[in-house]
Amino acid sequence: MVTPRTLSGFKDRLPSEAIIKHNVIEKLSKVFRSFGFAPIETPHLEYADILIKQGSDEIQKELYRFTDHGERDVALRFDLTVPLARFVSQHKEALGLPFKRYAIGNVFRGERAQAGRYREFTQCDFDFIGTTSASSDAEIILVIYESLKALGIESFTIRINNRKIMNGLCKSLGVDDKIEAILREVDKIEKVGEEKVLESLTSLQIEKQKAAQIIEFIKIKENGGDFFSTIAEYEQNEFMVEGIKELKKIYGILSAIEMPKSAYAIDFSIARGLGYYTGIVYETVLNELPTIGSVASGGRYDNLTQNFSKEKMEGVGASIGLDRLLAALEQLGRLDRKETPSSVLVMPLDEEIEAESAKITKKLRDSSIGAELYPAPHKLKKQLAYANKKGHEFVLFLGQDEIKNSVVTIRNMKNGTQIDMVSLSDAISHIKHTLYGGN
Amino acid sequence: MVTPRTLSGFKDRLPSEAIIKHNVIEKLSKVFRSFGFAPIETPHLEYADILIKQGSDEIQKELYRFTDHGERDVALRFDLTVPLARFVSQHKEALGLPFKRYAIGNVFRGERAQAGRYREFTQCDFDFIGTTSASSDAEIILVIYESLKALGIESFTIRINNRKIMNGLCKSLGVDDKIEAILREVDKIEKVGEEKVLESLTSLQIEKQKAAQIIEFIKIKENGGDFFSTIAEYEQNEFMVEGIKELKKIYGILSAIEMPKSAYAIDFSIARGLGYYTGIVYETVLNELPTIGSVASGGRYDNLTQNFSKEKMEGVGASIGLDRLLAALEQLGRLDRKETPSSVLVMPLDEEIEAESAKITKKLRDSSIGAELYPAPHKLKKQLAYANKKGHEFVLFLGQDEIKNSVVTIRNMKNGTQIDMVSLSDAISHIKHTLYGGN
Repeated sequence: MVTPRTLSGFKDRLPSEAIIKHNVIEKLSKVFRSFGFAPIETPHLEYADILIKQGSDEIQKELYRFTDHGERDVALRFDLTVPLARFVSQHKEALGLPFKRYAIGNVFRGERAQAGRYREFTQCDFDFIGTTSASSDAEIILVIYESLKALGIESFTIRINNRKIMNGLCKSLGVDDKIEAILREVDKIEKVGEEKVLESLTSLQIEKQKAAQIIEFIKIKENGGDFFSTIAEYEQNEFMVEGIKELKKIYGILSAIEMPKSAYAIDFSIARGLGYYTGIVYETVLNELPTIGSVASGGRYDNLTQNFSKEKMEGVGASIGLDRLLAALEQLGRLDRKETPSSVLVMPLDEEIEAESAKITKKLRDSSIGAELYPAPHKLKKQLAYANKKGHEFVLFLGQDEIKNSVVTIRNMKNGTQIDMVSLSDAISHIKHTLYGGN
Repeated sequence: MVTPRTLSGFKDRLPSEAIIKHNVIEKLSKVFRSFGFAPIETPHLEYADILIKQGSDEIQKELYRFTDHGERDVALRFDLTVPLARFVSQHKEALGLPFKRYAIGNVFRGERAQAGRYREFTQCDFDFIGTTSASSDAEIILVIYESLKALGIESFTIRINNRKIMNGLCKSLGVDDKIEAILREVDKIEKVGEEKVLESLTSLQIEKQKAAQIIEFIKIKENGGDFFSTIAEYEQNEFMVEGIKELKKIYGILSAIEMPKSAYAIDFSIARGLGYYTGIVYETVLNELPTIGSVASGGRYDNLTQNFSKEKMEGVGASIGLDRLLAALEQLGRLDRKETPSSVLVMPLDEEIEAESAKITKKLRDSSIGAELYPAPHKLKKQLAYANKKGHEFVLFLGQDEIKNSVVTIRNMKNGTQIDMVSLSDAISHIKHTLYGGN
């Protein structure tokens, strides 16, 4: 006997959780596809040298890497971006540009196990490659917006920044050699406060007055007035001018498509961790749960394929944090947990009516009602307990009397109301009306 | 620079292929869910001892097995059945019985690379656990039927057998000690012919007369008459009686639900490779492509969890061979290959109309038309070439004139017809009518 167990940091998803995850993935895929993002698939396992070069030291340590049967040095993918870079380099002739793809798949990182962090988790990425247009930058924001709306999330803010602006500011202050460290610190302002950031900036050997100027700038918020006039006076050099001009163009598009202004805001403190962003960057906070961090983040990069090809390939994309989002929906009480994807349980209460029960269940399904047939004529109590546990909205009792008279008895499991001895077609109408509101 | 490449035996799926696969998976999931099969997820990586014990020697050699960071002996799953057995043993309290699950996921086998065989491939399993009823045996047949119908496959035969019948026959002939070998040989009759099977049976030290009796029996086919009367005379012992009685019950259900008789047939030569089947077994051939083998197979087992628990857990299930099915649909010309999931390409032909173009594209999407916005005002020819390559059904031209007059110009890319300067709402009606047949 082997003890049934999963590896530390890995988890099973039982039906109630898996049903929700699959519904979320289906809704997100539908949004991505409506914009013309096509799905692609890459293997879970790659040559290690494909994955390692672009990864940070941290990721190299966390890599699931081993030698396979053919003595190849291989590893499980740790994200979907490096495989994308390999994919577009390898298939560029077949794909052509521009190229829009999405990918929803599992990735593996041997991180120290801790609450809510897993070693295998699902990423959900979409990228628009081979264009530098403001149109594509704006589209990513719209995809994030439509994705969260599709999941029933009403109140969120997509925070937008442009790396060029902070680069320009740092250049104008003569501290652009420290830009990565500066971005890392200013990104924390919301969490640690102004004072702490000022301290850390000065500890980077930045003059206090310059540090104060940086903080003053990142604190500028949209306040209903003409934001772009306000920040025009800060434009110190061509980098800032270009960065602000790009944001202005994106704002023009978002305004034309009438995205509610409450859904997005410029925030100069947004840095995003990854070094490879070179233009616009995004992150998205749920207004009801700001502390869980960003649920959708990304940005523009100017050379996706640098490790695989001399040809430059620029693009813009984002990633929706599926696990974080699911945890948020759970916290917000937006999840309707059920252990079955079907709406009706058909309950045969007599051994002789097995075939007729199967026939009635099929008729329900043929009428677009998810319907499950209890597999044996167990006692009423046992079958009802099953329906209660699984979460069927309706049960349909079938005994000798019902079959003889060509009727059924249905019970609404939410409110307990029961309709006895009704025709199957009336039962179907009633169930559809209750479930879908129509007829 | 690293050369972009995939491991031997692993493959990328480019959009045209991934779109089809995702559509197929969505349709299959919908069928499974309508019957009350719930999705579950298990990790790709497991403790090696979980996977190995139940695997054959062959599979042990093919296992991707390694030592992880924590010095654990781990392996990538090679099927979805062993993880299911581990899952139901581990979570039996939470799940309860009966339990119906489906799982669609990738598995890994380091087989010798050959045409059409991959080391990572997708399995698609559904199982009904914790019941021995004929109702559940019949339901699996119905799920296979509805699945293939949902994919637009019209002509197929689900071949049905019951292990108990062959067990009984072999017992009555006193050759039941060789049953596994016998089943392996008779399973080949369609491929190699009667003579060869007779030869291999006699080479198993089975008397020629007995071998002939086995072959006579497995050759009995349904021929429109009363099949069960015909085979009644072959009933030699309780095993055969019970096996035939079970098939008869299943036939009663299939007849009650009015499944077309052409879709299923009893075939005593069906063995299915796996040793653990103990009752009904299924396989499914496409009548137009019999040579590709079974596209949906399975059967009943009486102890799924024997390596993990003393408690017996019986069940019945099947697996749809997704890769084989996709190859078949391709061969049958049933696949409409497109590189984009969107129907319309909006083509902005002037730099000044970027924002308006985004607005019009959004209006198409808000009308449930998948619409992609070309990201830059490139030349007409270039944008048209993009639409041609991707396979959009319609393009929508937008120039200064169109925007000024609040109209659009649309072209049907399949037949080349163009409608100039039409209102957006008329264009939307026309596109929806063409794509979906309605208004």
